[in-house]
Amino acid sequence: MGLEIGFKHCDPAGIVFYPRYAEMVNDTVEHWFKHGLGVDFDCLHRVRRIAIPTVKLDFEFKAPSRLGEALISTLIVVATGRSSVALEVDFAGQDKRPRLRAEVTFVFVDMESMKSLEIPSDLKRSIEGYRSAAESCGPD
Amino acid sequence: MGLEIGFKHCDPAGIVFYPRYAEMVNDTVEHWFKHGLGVDFDCLHRVRRIAIPTVKLDFEFKAPSRLGEALISTLIVVATGRSSVALEVDFAGQDKRPRLRAEVTFVFVDMESMKSLEIPSDLKRSIEGYRSAAESCGPD
Amino acid sequence: MGLEIGFKHCDPAGIVFYPRYAEMVNDTVEHWFKHGLGVDFDCLHRVRRIAIPTVKLDFEFKAPSRLGEALISTLIVVATGRSSVALEVDFAGQDKRPRLRAEVTFVFVDMESMKSLEIPSDLKRSIEGYRSAAESCGPD
Amino acid sequence: MGLEIGFKHCDPAGIVFYPRYAEMVNDTVEHWFKHGLGVDFDCLHRVRRIAIPTVKLDFEFKAPSRLGEALISTLIVVATGRSSVALEVDFAGQDKRPRLRAEVTFVFVDMESMKSLEIPSDLKRSIEGYRSAAESCGPD
Repeated sequence: MGLEIGFKHCDPAGIVFYPRYAEMVNDTVEHWFKHGLGVDFDCLHRVRRIAIPTVKLDFEFKAPSRLGEALISTLIVVATGRSSVALEVDFAGQDKRPRLRAEVTFVFVDMESMKSLEIPSDLKRSIEGYRSAAESCGPD
Repeated sequence: MGLEIGFKHCDPAGIVFYPRYAEMVNDTVEHWFKHGLGVDFDCLHRVRRIAIPTVKLDFEFKAPSRLGEALISTLIVVATGRSSVALEVDFAGQDKRPRLRAEVTFVFVDMESMKSLEIPSDLKRSIEGYRSAAESCGPD
Repeated sequence: MGLEIGFKHCDPAGIVFYPRYAEMVNDTVEHWFKHGLGVDFDCLHRVRRIAIPTVKLDFEFKAPSRLGEALISTLIVVATGRSSVALEVDFAGQDKRPRLRAEVTFVFVDMESMKSLEIPSDLKRSIEGYRSAAESCGPD
Repeated sequence: MGLEIGFKHCDPAGIVFYPRYAEMVNDTVEHWFKHGLGVDFDCLHRVRRIAIPTVKLDFEFKAPSRLGEALISTLIVVATGRSSVALEVDFAGQDKRPRLRAEVTFVFVDMESMKSLEIPSDLKRSIEGYRSAAESCGPD
């Protein structure tokens, strides 16, 4: 997903304010649900009454990003459990050099009870598809 | 630091949108610099030309927080290096039950060169004070 | 309402990014509902199923605000209609000099139908109280 | 400019939280500087040391926008002064029906002194071009 660093992302030190990176991680996951898995967040939340709260989120910041830069974020499925999905989301500059590596784990929950749900079967299939694709690229 | 969960923090699922937690972690660190260490972010950045970019940030979300709740955040110095400081920032509800545990590592850098700096000696003393204080409260 | 200008509010030009002022206007209105009118936004939205979308919002920026400053916002009820309320929200620095004047009009709507509602009678009484109070302070 | 309404824009009432519209107005102006006027905000602020604080901003909200919708924003130059520029920024849904009309006035200032500047001549020409273009489309 392409992301352009604008005025709203930057702090008085002239670099991206890190809570804005958390927003960009969410945007990447949301974009993947819509365009990758074919279920947008409106359908997921309002129609299917499923929420996907994040339970773990680790950031490693490799280099600062500045106003006017264009970043690319990529997403890989690292693991899936009964109700959880672990992703790696990487951000790089146009020179391909890494800026940020994020590991995100979220769980599927019923919005009324907030209890965890088994990953819905239609989504499970699509999500696993992203995992295999990524695995096929690596040595293991 | 007391934090009241308002409309701006919450998403359509009715719980705190996690990038807002990243903002609250920053607010807690900023509050500590100002009221704990006696050097506010304006003095640090504009006058002393020092920035403190975050290099690592790990979140563990323990329970969702909802509109109208009051949270308390607490901060402990976990470790200091030549130019880096590692903190733990915990958020709890009014019932003292944990909502979020964050580990934050930031480094002191010169704002012009963006090169790392030794922790300024006045700040080092104050920061170490918070470490000792925290250590003296625990069994180890 | 007291507001401390922090890192999150400021842009690379070193002054408050204006969308953050819109957030502070919302915070002031939300604070007034909770502490002035006695009905917080959680009760209003989740329990009573009433939303109060803003239909008009005019800002006049009088002077920039900077990192580290403390502002005070004040709120006056300018007019009430069948379902609408018009407010003036002013922000000043610690020297009392104005920074921002905002005029906000919102309407009460039913959250299911999104149709306008007559102002609930309990709230109408409290809101009118704020109008009289303000009027009693001025010459007209 | 195309804008996709995502999770980050929406509040617990399920509609766009109005401070996010203020952010989208800024994004539209920033996009116009970069792609329309040929001077991006990084060049303007960091290289040329010019800021463009907003002095007046009026919003009229015509209809709520919801998660998952795609909006289009358009920008017209309404008037230019010695140092000020007045714009109209309109947001519409995919059905072309209006959602929001914003009027924005900003001034060119020197970032060191924060004193107003005459509109730089290269920008003045480009900005006036947008005014003529818009005028040529209307009956007056």
